[in-house]
Amino acid sequence: MTETVKSLPGGVFAAIPTPMRDDLSVDHALLAEHSRWLLANGCDGLLVLGTTGEANSLSVTERIELLDRLVADDLPAKRLLCGTGCCALPDTVALTRHALANDVGGVLILPPFYYKNVSDDGLYAVYDQLIQQIGDTRLRIFLYHFPQMSGVPISHALIERLVRAYPATVVGMKDSSGDWDNMRTTCERLPGFRVYAGSEQYLLPILRAGGVGCISATTNVTAPLAARVYADWHAPDAEAHQARVNEVRGAIESYSAIPALKFLMAERRGLASWRNMRPPLMPLANEQARELSARLARLRFPISARSTEQS
Amino acid sequence: MTETVKSLPGGVFAAIPTPMRDDLSVDHALLAEHSRWLLANGCDGLLVLGTTGEANSLSVTERIELLDRLVADDLPAKRLLCGTGCCALPDTVALTRHALANDVGGVLILPPFYYKNVSDDGLYAVYDQLIQQIGDTRLRIFLYHFPQMSGVPISHALIERLVRAYPATVVGMKDSSGDWDNMRTTCERLPGFRVYAGSEQYLLPILRAGGVGCISATTNVTAPLAARVYADWHAPDAEAHQARVNEVRGAIESYSAIPALKFLMAERRGLASWRNMRPPLMPLANEQARELSARLARLRFPISARSTEQS
Repeated sequence: MTETVKSLPGGVFAAIPTPMRDDLSVDHALLAEHSRWLLANGCDGLLVLGTTGEANSLSVTERIELLDRLVADDLPAKRLLCGTGCCALPDTVALTRHALANDVGGVLILPPFYYKNVSDDGLYAVYDQLIQQIGDTRLRIFLYHFPQMSGVPISHALIERLVRAYPATVVGMKDSSGDWDNMRTTCERLPGFRVYAGSEQYLLPILRAGGVGCISATTNVTAPLAARVYADWHAPDAEAHQARVNEVRGAIESYSAIPALKFLMAERRGLASWRNMRPPLMPLANEQARELSARLARLRFPISARSTEQS
Repeated sequence: MTETVKSLPGGVFAAIPTPMRDDLSVDHALLAEHSRWLLANGCDGLLVLGTTGEANSLSVTERIELLDRLVADDLPAKRLLCGTGCCALPDTVALTRHALANDVGGVLILPPFYYKNVSDDGLYAVYDQLIQQIGDTRLRIFLYHFPQMSGVPISHALIERLVRAYPATVVGMKDSSGDWDNMRTTCERLPGFRVYAGSEQYLLPILRAGGVGCISATTNVTAPLAARVYADWHAPDAEAHQARVNEVRGAIESYSAIPALKFLMAERRGLASWRNMRPPLMPLANEQARELSARLARLRFPISARSTEQS
């Protein structure tokens, strides 16, 4: 096959949280609504079913339905990066095949994250078997490096080996390590490899280093600000825009990310059910929620005019 | 309901590895054969689908089939502890319900292990929702504490809260922390709670502390020796038996557990396919395999007369 596949765009991506009804089933309509809001308010693309999306708290069946419903709701599939990496390779294969059938822009693949201290040979074998079993030249894999959560880092040696073996398939990564040196080194060692920083605080630095954008939980809030950085990142005022992004993100990131975000989504939408999440995650405590609202207000970044209706 | 449910026996349990064919599908016949061998050679019961069984590398469908086939093959279900804890609660519910339908002696439940630094409230909610959704008085839950692998420890405060809320359901635990103080403290603080050490090296100590047995990967090899400890652990020669167990385990535990065990199973059975495993785990390198064989031979504990046929 020689077809040309349009790659996932660069730029500002939000890792979207998954709204849930009071019985903790997925609220598909609200997810589509929020996704549209993000694409209209600064996001170039969206990560669905990542860490922020509580993907690993959903069954394979639920993950398949979520993507089907989102695409059926006219969300542009090519602007979606879909998380499909599981502990069990048969699950990763099933979800990746399904994401491809939905014509998404790319899949984001966590390494299997139960066994720790595994070898690069073992991790290589996982990605290799996945690619062989999918057997589809349209496959575009983004590696998901998030060692604090997965407990399984993806080394530069492993990335280089995968890119050498599958240059048209292993095309990029989301680096959520928070380790700037690691991101910079990847950009330097692998020109053309599409590196997204896992935080919008590194948006300008990673663009300057040769990366392509950011994919972040807090971008659900900061997307309109981050978009100003991306729109003209060569311009002199890009640093001022980046400083503003960092200020707002800084107010949020001292709280547990997913509870804080779901609280802020609830405030913005005026809908308490946005705070629902599956255990082991728990909603933000009311005191912390009030504190977070106050901090954002002090930064003149109130989340919602309707927030007073919700308390 | 007031039915009396026979509890899982105490004593020596092996966490059985899952044999796989060359295409990495489960070899059900070999699993049943090995399980019978263990029950005839020192094991009081078996853990199926634990860490050693590569449970998290199998899909829910594969896990269901594995248990169905094992029970259909006349293995005594009441002597089986079945691992059913997943990251996604719907999966844990489905597997637990299925294990109950197969009338197993108990289920071993990992906490959801993707999200780290979660609260005891969040973990309590997971077990609480599981128990409520199962809604069956026959349910017997054993907590699975293996922080080095799961990244999610189970605190004494959490255990006590669960046991207070569900005294007939949350009945015991497997403590694979390797932390003797933690095991002893659990036995002291929760009399009647059925604590299995995650290593047979603590078999005698935990019986003396009030625990009920051990569940271990290396018991696949040491079961006949561990059984001598358990058979008469009040007798004066129990310590000598325990010392012999420790000596053999010590030779194995310096290698990566699952690759080492699968190598030893291959040697004992004279069947190279026993070494197959799913990535990210990889078979023991040949040099390490030779070294391990030599160490066991020096301890006068050769694995198999047929081992020379396999090299």
